[in-house]
Amino acid sequence: MKQTYVSQLQDHVGQEVTVRGWLYNSRIKGKIVFLLVRDGTGTVQSVVSQGEVAPPTWEAANQATQESSLSVTGTVRADARAPGGHELSVKGIEVHQLVTGEYPITPKEHGVDFLMRHRHLWLRSKRQHAILRVRATIVRAIRDYFDGLGFLLVDAPIFTPAACEGTTTLFEVGYFDEKAYLTQSGQLYMEAAAMAHGKVYCFGPTFRAEKSKTRRHLTEFWMVEPEVAYAELDDVMELAQGLVCRIVGDVLARHREDLAVLERDPAPLSRVVPPFPRISYDEAVRLLAEKGHVVEPGNDFGAPDETAISEHFDRPVLVHRYPAQVKAFYMKPDPADPTKALCVDMIAPEGYGEIVGGGQRADSLLYLEQRIAEHRLPKEAFEWYLDLRKYGSVPHGGFGLGVERTVAWICGIEHVRETIPFPRMLYKIYP
Amino acid sequence: MKQTYVSQLQDHVGQEVTVRGWLYNSRIKGKIVFLLVRDGTGTVQSVVSQGEVAPPTWEAANQATQESSLSVTGTVRADARAPGGHELSVKGIEVHQLVTGEYPITPKEHGVDFLMRHRHLWLRSKRQHAILRVRATIVRAIRDYFDGLGFLLVDAPIFTPAACEGTTTLFEVGYFDEKAYLTQSGQLYMEAAAMAHGKVYCFGPTFRAEKSKTRRHLTEFWMVEPEVAYAELDDVMELAQGLVCRIVGDVLARHREDLAVLERDPAPLSRVVPPFPRISYDEAVRLLAEKGHVVEPGNDFGAPDETAISEHFDRPVLVHRYPAQVKAFYMKPDPADPTKALCVDMIAPEGYGEIVGGGQRADSLLYLEQRIAEHRLPKEAFEWYLDLRKYGSVPHGGFGLGVERTVAWICGIEHVRETIPFPRMLYKIYP
Repeated sequence: MKQTYVSQLQDHVGQEVTVRGWLYNSRIKGKIVFLLVRDGTGTVQSVVSQGEVAPPTWEAANQATQESSLSVTGTVRADARAPGGHELSVKGIEVHQLVTGEYPITPKEHGVDFLMRHRHLWLRSKRQHAILRVRATIVRAIRDYFDGLGFLLVDAPIFTPAACEGTTTLFEVGYFDEKAYLTQSGQLYMEAAAMAHGKVYCFGPTFRAEKSKTRRHLTEFWMVEPEVAYAELDDVMELAQGLVCRIVGDVLARHREDLAVLERDPAPLSRVVPPFPRISYDEAVRLLAEKGHVVEPGNDFGAPDETAISEHFDRPVLVHRYPAQVKAFYMKPDPADPTKALCVDMIAPEGYGEIVGGGQRADSLLYLEQRIAEHRLPKEAFEWYLDLRKYGSVPHGGFGLGVERTVAWICGIEHVRETIPFPRMLYKIYP
Repeated sequence: MKQTYVSQLQDHVGQEVTVRGWLYNSRIKGKIVFLLVRDGTGTVQSVVSQGEVAPPTWEAANQATQESSLSVTGTVRADARAPGGHELSVKGIEVHQLVTGEYPITPKEHGVDFLMRHRHLWLRSKRQHAILRVRATIVRAIRDYFDGLGFLLVDAPIFTPAACEGTTTLFEVGYFDEKAYLTQSGQLYMEAAAMAHGKVYCFGPTFRAEKSKTRRHLTEFWMVEPEVAYAELDDVMELAQGLVCRIVGDVLARHREDLAVLERDPAPLSRVVPPFPRISYDEAVRLLAEKGHVVEPGNDFGAPDETAISEHFDRPVLVHRYPAQVKAFYMKPDPADPTKALCVDMIAPEGYGEIVGGGQRADSLLYLEQRIAEHRLPKEAFEWYLDLRKYGSVPHGGFGLGVERTVAWICGIEHVRETIPFPRMLYKIYP
């Protein structure tokens, strides 16, 4: 029996098809049963009339419970009033498995803990469905953008021998008789790859063992990290701006309905076009002072500061040249003011926080050796990285964009835990 | 100073451009220096004539050492004899960093251990360059294939609370006050996602703590895992066949030159077209017996058996219905012979071993509960998985395709360690 997906029904009007899926909802109205059947590509109203079907089909229609699996055979009719624009006049029903007992997720309000423990079922709900569809488009947009610009995908390793930025937030793994750490960033590896391939990116899961329970933190999250040989800070900002415009553009082009399900106003997203404002850290500090936010000189911004900055602009803002002391050892100092780093953060609009961090990397061997010593990092673990400055060092830079925060911003959702299929948080790894 | 990539030179014949890269090789011939400059997109011969450049440029050309970073400005000339079809008549050279001391990787033969310790530099060599380019196209082909068929990308988690197939080959991670394991497969999660979205796939790193040092094993490798609701074994075989044809087709269309660098004969790849032979395990056992390979009844095949099977066919072969006892607990038994599982392995040609494993999943709650008990797996860890059989269970199936073995086969290389940018093996996680 050939299967027709709900998303294909428009091509089968007047024909008899079989839709295979699950019962989302049903309504009995005298001698008619309306079955709302979902199959992953959409939902179709399937109309069962007692007078037009055999008694076992009528019985099946009446007994089917929420999330029971079933195949429904019937004729496709265009009907503007029906959800999705089509409905099925049912001839036959095959129930694969009848759900007995109550389906755990009912239309009533459930607590988040309950929903998270039932994430494997929660995925079936309309809202989660919409979020993961947008997420998949965002991932695709990222890959299309870099592949289209001639970047080479170079997968970074997950097991690493040492930390990029200290060991306090690293997950340690027993690696046979040794120890390994789960990667926090593929950047150092991408620097090596950029020296081989010019323009590269990695895109995979990264890990942070942070004991923080905030709405912006996951222990496992996906990050894309491009790295470009011969790129300087302005090139990095241009590249990041182009990426974010591509992502937002693709979502707006394909997911108006999903954004409506999420009650996400698309108007602020429509304003995400180049050029994004670019302000220095010092300018941002002055802006914050005007809004009554005091930033101690030389300190990084906190989440409330980022929110205040974002509220001042109608699109993402690029904040560059932070104090070198709050940034990682590999940042290149600004020749015009060596207390500042040639770095940039992109802060999303509407208070969604930092979604991009990057900059130009130090290309001097001597400077990097000094910084590694100052940060008390184990030099032997970085020998290979220093080789990149001994053998053909070039100006270069790149950034990382976090997928989950980007999804949260674009979908307009409060907490990143809904932006990834199976979120991992402090004390939370089931299912 | 605008940068022109070597791959773009054809559009700039007769124009002055600046190529930024590294010195791959140089040759001095009296009053002419030939600099072979690579920039990641290609290599261009840059001709420096003493009579046509200022003395500092002439000096720079003579002093530049292997892998020194430099920008070369000159006029593009079409020259059929030049590698790549174009060369530069140089006017100026800017050396960014002069490599002093010998570059570690010289044209002489190095041992594999040495090369692996210098993987960050080894990536720059022609052969490694070609392999990673083919790998990127394979990854892209996989995503294009599934996205084109309407599959939704659903990222599986890396941290898992329990093992899919026992804990002996799992990496354990300290997860705050608990333990977690690194995923061996996203399949169980994809089964949950398929019940929500119909057709899904995950594509990410997976981990096996195997103490084996073979040419086919890595501790960290990438796997794509599609899962389809309402799919049966034949559908799974069809899907896997289509994927492998798409991958091989895309590589042949775009990488003839890279395959030539790898001395990979493309002829056997051209024969990878549908239909692939499909034989049962029992037929494979008989085939092996004819070739003098004795397989104990009910046992799995070893690598030499797979090689012998592959040599019998001119394209990948699908071997289905292995003994249930050698397969995982979630496999659906064949109704025609319950001692066999409705599973399939795809064995690559030319002795490259299994590249796909999959099949139809058990959809009966009772059967799965029995199998989990028989395998002495912790039932509480699988409660969520059993929920999928309580709430709308459907026939479904999928498979996993290992990226590194696929790259090894298509590139025709002996050992999987060269198929991933930064390979992780037993006692080997640096750089």
